[in-house]
Amino acid sequence: MMTATTVKERSLLGLKGLDRSEITAILDRASYWDKQTEKLNPVLASKFVSNMFFENSTRTRFSFEMAEKRLGAQVLNFAAAASSVEKGESIYDTVRTLESMGIDAGVVRLKPTGVLQQLSEKVSIPLINAGDGNNEHPTQALLDMFTMIKTFGEIKGLTVSIIGDIMHSRVARSNLWGLTEMGAKVQFCAPDNMKAPELAEHAPYVTMDEALKADVVMMLRVQLERHAGGMIKSAEDYRTHFGLTEERAARLGSGTVIMHPAPVNRNVEIDDAVVESAKSLIFPQMSNGVPVRMAVIERAIR
Amino acid sequence: MMTATTVKERSLLGLKGLDRSEITAILDRASYWDKQTEKLNPVLASKFVSNMFFENSTRTRFSFEMAEKRLGAQVLNFAAAASSVEKGESIYDTVRTLESMGIDAGVVRLKPTGVLQQLSEKVSIPLINAGDGNNEHPTQALLDMFTMIKTFGEIKGLTVSIIGDIMHSRVARSNLWGLTEMGAKVQFCAPDNMKAPELAEHAPYVTMDEALKADVVMMLRVQLERHAGGMIKSAEDYRTHFGLTEERAARLGSGTVIMHPAPVNRNVEIDDAVVESAKSLIFPQMSNGVPVRMAVIERAIR
Amino acid sequence: MMTATTVKERSLLGLKGLDRSEITAILDRASYWDKQTEKLNPVLASKFVSNMFFENSTRTRFSFEMAEKRLGAQVLNFAAAASSVEKGESIYDTVRTLESMGIDAGVVRLKPTGVLQQLSEKVSIPLINAGDGNNEHPTQALLDMFTMIKTFGEIKGLTVSIIGDIMHSRVARSNLWGLTEMGAKVQFCAPDNMKAPELAEHAPYVTMDEALKADVVMMLRVQLERHAGGMIKSAEDYRTHFGLTEERAARLGSGTVIMHPAPVNRNVEIDDAVVESAKSLIFPQMSNGVPVRMAVIERAIR
Repeated sequence: MMTATTVKERSLLGLKGLDRSEITAILDRASYWDKQTEKLNPVLASKFVSNMFFENSTRTRFSFEMAEKRLGAQVLNFAAAASSVEKGESIYDTVRTLESMGIDAGVVRLKPTGVLQQLSEKVSIPLINAGDGNNEHPTQALLDMFTMIKTFGEIKGLTVSIIGDIMHSRVARSNLWGLTEMGAKVQFCAPDNMKAPELAEHAPYVTMDEALKADVVMMLRVQLERHAGGMIKSAEDYRTHFGLTEERAARLGSGTVIMHPAPVNRNVEIDDAVVESAKSLIFPQMSNGVPVRMAVIERAIR
Repeated sequence: MMTATTVKERSLLGLKGLDRSEITAILDRASYWDKQTEKLNPVLASKFVSNMFFENSTRTRFSFEMAEKRLGAQVLNFAAAASSVEKGESIYDTVRTLESMGIDAGVVRLKPTGVLQQLSEKVSIPLINAGDGNNEHPTQALLDMFTMIKTFGEIKGLTVSIIGDIMHSRVARSNLWGLTEMGAKVQFCAPDNMKAPELAEHAPYVTMDEALKADVVMMLRVQLERHAGGMIKSAEDYRTHFGLTEERAARLGSGTVIMHPAPVNRNVEIDDAVVESAKSLIFPQMSNGVPVRMAVIERAIR
Repeated sequence: MMTATTVKERSLLGLKGLDRSEITAILDRASYWDKQTEKLNPVLASKFVSNMFFENSTRTRFSFEMAEKRLGAQVLNFAAAASSVEKGESIYDTVRTLESMGIDAGVVRLKPTGVLQQLSEKVSIPLINAGDGNNEHPTQALLDMFTMIKTFGEIKGLTVSIIGDIMHSRVARSNLWGLTEMGAKVQFCAPDNMKAPELAEHAPYVTMDEALKADVVMMLRVQLERHAGGMIKSAEDYRTHFGLTEERAARLGSGTVIMHPAPVNRNVEIDDAVVESAKSLIFPQMSNGVPVRMAVIERAIR
């Protein structure tokens, strides 16, 4: 159990700037929750948590809701149609409204980058980032790291290849910051028009063949509609150059594992037969998300 | 209370193949729940149930949610926009995802026929069919049978006329299998283009006049937009030939009751004044759905 | 705690016709809940409440849900797409359905005026109006009055100016009936095409300058799309003539407070800088909504 700290310290806006001891504390607590055989542990029985999703994601919302309910918290879901709440000002009004109504913490997912940081400075409850624009998705990276620890024992010394649309990926960014802090080596692999130039100083871009020589091969979901006019003309084209095909999966080292934040585009960034192959940790990642989010929620309001 | 069995036995995918003793056990348990004066009976207090609706239906979802909450279960609702999840593969990924997150049972409604059966072979939690395509809607038929038992004492020997769009009706199919197993005589009545040829060997098609001479007259919801070009040109036309009009209702035998799975199209398949007439069990059917679903949920995970 | 009464007396369809003692009893109980330091007070632990929203409003639904959950009630949310449920008949079928399934009370928001009254005569559970057409929004007016009491000690003798689209405002109407019964003086201010002629006998229309000389300046949300062709041509035009601009806010008396039912159109009916200024009670109103709704829910079903 964490000791009470400031609202800012209990929030989780991103992994950038979070130091190793903080990350370790969260992952240790996730391990504690992961080992509980009782599903319901009502340590937050009189606490109210709201999942405020200004960008649709039933999976991530569901994972947070499981975590909150396993801790016995009262859960209120708020999902705004993308059309009705788009501007930062409107998001601010909504979050302040729900805060005024007495929630103890808010889990927030939203599109515009930078708004969450501003929000956190104006409200007096802890906020947890469930994905903000292209910026960060810290609980996803924490569950990825938790999955790596369960597999490899520790993160230090691992080589992690993140493959795909780095430019638009908050998952890539959160993993970059977290994994680097924890002592892993991160490398990217992406078509030119999906690279993020500002991250080049933090992790090298490598070829697909090099990327496959890693402890963890983390595939990202690609949304080709974002890249019209680039070098990648089609899903088949993407798969040929950057997909984890069955052929490529067969060449992975014996200890290499495959990860993906889901949902997957089967037969685009990853072949159908690879998704549930022996090397794949994709469904275990989802299972691990729950204890990790329990640790994050508990840290916020217990 | 049921004794623990295999996941497959605790699932409820359909009534086809379910034997009389199983159906009776569920209906007996429904009767037990129906008699409880306490609304909340938290026998499933640490269990997590997800209502996964890939096809919209607030009423059925609500009935399941009432049942789950009356048993004290933790409930997580997942509703996918019809557009975003249509293919079986995508439904599979979602159900596996929610299973990975730790739910104890899933209530599933979906459009594509056959997908639920495939799903059930791949996941390791019990699944309950809340309506799958044109195939089955077993809890609806169970609540219909429960309603008949409350009215007539037993199902054996009853004549049940099912009137309307048999071809597209999962309600008709589940009732056919369940009622036949329980010893009732089922007969259908439908315009030619709404008949289901493959069911002809199991139940006869009769005229509307004959259909009205039954213990139970079960009207189905008609969706005329599915039948453009057929012999039925309009709602008024449908009502004239196959509607339970006030005039027809007045001719029903003194012991005959009217049922409908709801929601009704008033003045199409059933006249407005008939919906809440003395012979109608339409709202009692809805009430009976809750204890029946409590029995089914409890059977799945207690 | 209220003593048990008839279903009709436990419903809250509007403030019109509710006498001072009833309003006072609700506000006193709200004050009790407002003072509780424990967030969860499970006095309704085995009660089932459904929020049936036939018109979208996540904020109001959220406030009711907080209130219900703080009382420990089981909450079932039902939100109908505006398109699928529009007619009174269809709303009736839905409410009767949910009643049949065993809910103890229903919170209802809907568009068509008059339907809620008809509904309440046909169902046997208490209904709470969460906004019906242009008719009433009683819990909003109760929370407004509760906010005034917390600010001024009592309502009697206050002058309250309600400014904006009176014609379409259920908030204006509920406040008119409630405030008048409690001894306040209500006055309206609106462009000609937003006036409600039938209310003219109950409260005078005054100029904007006069309206600002009041104890409470209550701004209404304006929806300009409802008034095409009127004297107000644009949002800027509305702001110029009827907006609570920074300039106008600066001229308010030292004891005058600003209210708004939210969500606000910043820089239309009220300037951005005024929303969270010292005189504004807009966010406190939202906080006050929860204990007020706790009192109303408790009155309905305890």
